[in-house]
Amino acid sequence: MRNRTIITNVKPNLEDGRYYIKRIPGENVKVTARIFCDAEDVLRACILYKKEGEKNWEEAPLLPIGDDEWTGTFYVTAQGIYHYKIEAWVDNLATWYDRFLKKQEKGQHLSNDLAMGAHWLKETAKQTDKATAKRLSEWSKIFADNDHYHKAVDTAISPEFKDVISGCTLKNHPTTFDRNLKIRVGSPRELFSTWYELFPRSTSEVPGKHGTFKDCEKLLPRIATLGFDTLLLPPIFPIGKTNRKGKNNSLVAEVADVGSPWSVGNEDGGHKSINPELGSMADFEKFVKSAAKHKIDIALDMGLRCSADHPYVKEHPDWFMRMPDGKLAIDEIPPLYYTDIVEFNFECDDWENLWKELLSVVMFWADKGVSMFYGSTPHYKPFDFWQWLIAEVHKKYPEVIFLSGAITRQIVTERLAMAGFSQSLSRFFWKTTKKEIQEYMQEITQGETKEYMHPNFFTNTPDILPSYLADAEENVFLLRYALASTLSSNCGIYGPVFEIMKNERHPDSKERYLNSEKYEIAHHDWNAKNRITEFISRINAIRKENTAFHNTFNIAFTQTDNEQLISFVKTSLDKSSTVWCIINLDPQNRQTGYVELPKELLGIKGHWFNLKVEELLTGETYHWFSDWNFVELKPEAYPMHLLKVSMAD
Amino acid sequence: MRNRTIITNVKPNLEDGRYYIKRIPGENVKVTARIFCDAEDVLRACILYKKEGEKNWEEAPLLPIGDDEWTGTFYVTAQGIYHYKIEAWVDNLATWYDRFLKKQEKGQHLSNDLAMGAHWLKETAKQTDKATAKRLSEWSKIFADNDHYHKAVDTAISPEFKDVISGCTLKNHPTTFDRNLKIRVGSPRELFSTWYELFPRSTSEVPGKHGTFKDCEKLLPRIATLGFDTLLLPPIFPIGKTNRKGKNNSLVAEVADVGSPWSVGNEDGGHKSINPELGSMADFEKFVKSAAKHKIDIALDMGLRCSADHPYVKEHPDWFMRMPDGKLAIDEIPPLYYTDIVEFNFECDDWENLWKELLSVVMFWADKGVSMFYGSTPHYKPFDFWQWLIAEVHKKYPEVIFLSGAITRQIVTERLAMAGFSQSLSRFFWKTTKKEIQEYMQEITQGETKEYMHPNFFTNTPDILPSYLADAEENVFLLRYALASTLSSNCGIYGPVFEIMKNERHPDSKERYLNSEKYEIAHHDWNAKNRITEFISRINAIRKENTAFHNTFNIAFTQTDNEQLISFVKTSLDKSSTVWCIINLDPQNRQTGYVELPKELLGIKGHWFNLKVEELLTGETYHWFSDWNFVELKPEAYPMHLLKVSMAD
Repeated sequence: MRNRTIITNVKPNLEDGRYYIKRIPGENVKVTARIFCDAEDVLRACILYKKEGEKNWEEAPLLPIGDDEWTGTFYVTAQGIYHYKIEAWVDNLATWYDRFLKKQEKGQHLSNDLAMGAHWLKETAKQTDKATAKRLSEWSKIFADNDHYHKAVDTAISPEFKDVISGCTLKNHPTTFDRNLKIRVGSPRELFSTWYELFPRSTSEVPGKHGTFKDCEKLLPRIATLGFDTLLLPPIFPIGKTNRKGKNNSLVAEVADVGSPWSVGNEDGGHKSINPELGSMADFEKFVKSAAKHKIDIALDMGLRCSADHPYVKEHPDWFMRMPDGKLAIDEIPPLYYTDIVEFNFECDDWENLWKELLSVVMFWADKGVSMFYGSTPHYKPFDFWQWLIAEVHKKYPEVIFLSGAITRQIVTERLAMAGFSQSLSRFFWKTTKKEIQEYMQEITQGETKEYMHPNFFTNTPDILPSYLADAEENVFLLRYALASTLSSNCGIYGPVFEIMKNERHPDSKERYLNSEKYEIAHHDWNAKNRITEFISRINAIRKENTAFHNTFNIAFTQTDNEQLISFVKTSLDKSSTVWCIINLDPQNRQTGYVELPKELLGIKGHWFNLKVEELLTGETYHWFSDWNFVELKPEAYPMHLLKVSMAD
Repeated sequence: MRNRTIITNVKPNLEDGRYYIKRIPGENVKVTARIFCDAEDVLRACILYKKEGEKNWEEAPLLPIGDDEWTGTFYVTAQGIYHYKIEAWVDNLATWYDRFLKKQEKGQHLSNDLAMGAHWLKETAKQTDKATAKRLSEWSKIFADNDHYHKAVDTAISPEFKDVISGCTLKNHPTTFDRNLKIRVGSPRELFSTWYELFPRSTSEVPGKHGTFKDCEKLLPRIATLGFDTLLLPPIFPIGKTNRKGKNNSLVAEVADVGSPWSVGNEDGGHKSINPELGSMADFEKFVKSAAKHKIDIALDMGLRCSADHPYVKEHPDWFMRMPDGKLAIDEIPPLYYTDIVEFNFECDDWENLWKELLSVVMFWADKGVSMFYGSTPHYKPFDFWQWLIAEVHKKYPEVIFLSGAITRQIVTERLAMAGFSQSLSRFFWKTTKKEIQEYMQEITQGETKEYMHPNFFTNTPDILPSYLADAEENVFLLRYALASTLSSNCGIYGPVFEIMKNERHPDSKERYLNSEKYEIAHHDWNAKNRITEFISRINAIRKENTAFHNTFNIAFTQTDNEQLISFVKTSLDKSSTVWCIINLDPQNRQTGYVELPKELLGIKGHWFNLKVEELLTGETYHWFSDWNFVELKPEAYPMHLLKVSMAD
């Protein structure tokens, strides 16, 4: 091959395009590679990228940063699939000019070099725009004119010549690194969403009565006022009767027990039906439309698991693991007993139809306006299945968002994100100290996963009552939401029990709720107003207004002199919004300390300044004049400062 | 896809088989991967490998070591190309048994589980050998027999059952990681060779007279006695006259000057001709045959560069970089001036014929019995060219060895080794302290390059007089050869000037020889016998006898209490040979200290022992009884101990 350049170690590169990286419009893609060639020639390189379906590749510079490392950045502006590749080539013009200058410095005679230069300039003129071509041709003539040696040398070392030449390249025999690298540019909602989870059956105003979608509908104004834009529902399908679970995960149910919504299917139908106790399909459709009016998306836990009573069990007996005698094999894996579930057998002969049917379930609800789907235990289905299903759904509904709920093993969380999940439930639950939080944020915003994983910081879920929250007091709840909502642009709460601090843990189980709504109907005071609801509404409004909070990867931690004070700055993609957050990690005690003014991050220049500091939570305004400033945070007020800093007039 | 297992991060993997890894017969390949699947099922995995041309894949186990990391090892036994891939699958038998035991421990009733077990045992019996199949079928029947519950449970938890089951697997729907991964298993000489370089023109017994191959032939017994098995010659072709270099790299030559052998070609011919002053082609052929009788391979510096007088210049004017007026563009890259060289233009339109012609040069000499080729500045030719050329030569001559001489930039050294160079000149020149040596050995024997790079530790070359050797005394030479020859199984010296300690450096140039043989004829005392020659012969004989020295990757450093004493153990692939080396890094002073007995490496068991310690250099024998033992090394004697340790009778 005539090309001499080697391109290797290209990043981001998810297994040579087997998986795509993720972005939202306005984000950039930073590409690095090692590029080198034989001999001592000067190389040039560029990134080529285009949106799928477009004809021409756009070009972004790739520049050397030493040790054969090259780096470059380009921006993606529209939703869709982008492709990118790298080109690198030996630049004979730049090589010539580099040597010319070295020889000129050494005082060598340059006749031959001028003649070569004349040649390369002429060649380069063929590849450049008309105006530049004209100038290169003129210079080429001067260089080729043996009678005006000094004029030619003076021209070659003139700033003007240097300037024009540095903008030109002679691109012959480029090496192309093209490994099908892809970016999926998704909806901005993939990176900015505020989730509220509730059990529809617990929404009745009458204690003990089964809630309905009509009851849910009545709660929409409240949820909107609290500032949530996504309402997550556990499975809404008919619930199995065989081996139905009782209260507190009991293996034996009482007659009145409502069972776990994750045990899907009975004689009323399966994954395309609604539990009649919640209402009709029409009720649900009305509810989804009503939510849309409140700018709330409905997110559905797909609950792709079956009870023994699911219609599939009769229609497709081969889709389930069975005993030799044909009985369903109910899997009780000690110490967990999912006795109300019969698992799909993804290794069955009819796996293709199983895949297709499950896709049709998701499409069914997407057709009804559900735009977010939650996979509660996605790691119990094959990775390849998810990759296929999500891609298929995205063909018709590119805006649909899938949230992965797998947090048990990091490699599994990562691979599900690679397979296409738009968001991933995060291990934020267990990050409480300054060190833990900073290290975790470093990992998810600077590590390799940042290319394809959008973490979602839930404070709690029906499955997880973090130890830190269990039996804790009000201030702890404020603190956890303060952290979740500012550290991460995607965040959420398992709502009613968070607002009203239901946090009694099950005595047998470290991080489970006592009297969990998973197995019974709960009654909540849906009119409650308290410090927590006030704080949540306030902070959610601030999140919405200040686009600095619409991204997770834009965080920079800054200095404080107190281990209990964590400080960071976030800046929006378009730089129009910057917020400085200072949080007191101690929910018990007032903490004071000095925080360093992050001048570079705030765009402050010079040594003398008078800064206007607006507190977004309280609306107060201070004036700061120093590099380090004093702050005081009392847990009984707000756990944090959210500051907007500008130069005072 | 029905398979559920993910295989990723497979190592070694050189760009999905774009490059091969290297081994010699008897070496192993350690493979690692991350393997996981959805759910909690038990996985199994294996490595499949085979020699090219063979029909069946051989299987080696791949086992989990925690955190989804798996590792396995297989051995390559014959020269040729091997292929390898990985398979992993969900093992329903193992998954069943894992859960069965957990439930049995918990005291659960196991009827259903026994029935499932009966099923999986029957399935597994179909995949196993007859004897095992018979037992599995028997057990299957017991498990299926509802009337003998306790007998079935007792069988299932019996050690015998456990033992048989652990040797079985039910392999359905495996995932295959097959990315064209290749191993080139080369000649053992790729990993064990002892090189001597001399300039044939400096071999005459008469001072000032041009040496010939006949003179070289007379030196073969001496070189054989010194214990070298490879004789490296700088280019032996006619030397250019245009811009011939004078003594000490002068840009102007005197009439009598012989020029640089790297400026190849004149009216007598090019790369397929011999400089007539060295003799005839017949003389050369006789010399090669004579060397073979002394078990010495001839290694030729390919010198693939041309003088302006090379026949190619007229025959293929387009192969060279030219000025616009057609004159050859002689490249003087400040501060280096290769004025006697005209470089090939590998980007020319006729590049394919240029590649073919250069291949024909190497084949020409390979046909004449040259089995080793040295690329003196291989990084001035495209990497793809080398990859192609070496592969082509290996088709006809798989034993031919290519040594790469590129040490300027690590990435270039690495890529040339990946492209196929069998050995790589190493940066050992500049490693002198214990820390430097240990770190460097760690890098080359434990780092990723170990998969494809065989370093060659030269003490010096015509181009490099390391500062440490320059103007140094005899002890320094002994020390450097002691290190080169024991740390690395491939080593070499630029002979005559090493033996007789010609080490005056050129005043203008940091690491160049004064009066370098590159530009003039030197006269050496080819009958010299001194401490250096005595030491070299002794150590080369020991290297040959003790196969522990035939590998570089088998080194383990051990403890001493003195920073000037470096200690390491080497063990041969077949474990039959183990040598413990202790070297005094201080060439000026006697050093004493305690060295820890590396019991594990030496295969010594127990706390009480009487060890017979044979010193291979002196032939002395000691008896050691302790975990730490005293050593004393005087630079005026040997710089090292080479110890063979065994249990005394």
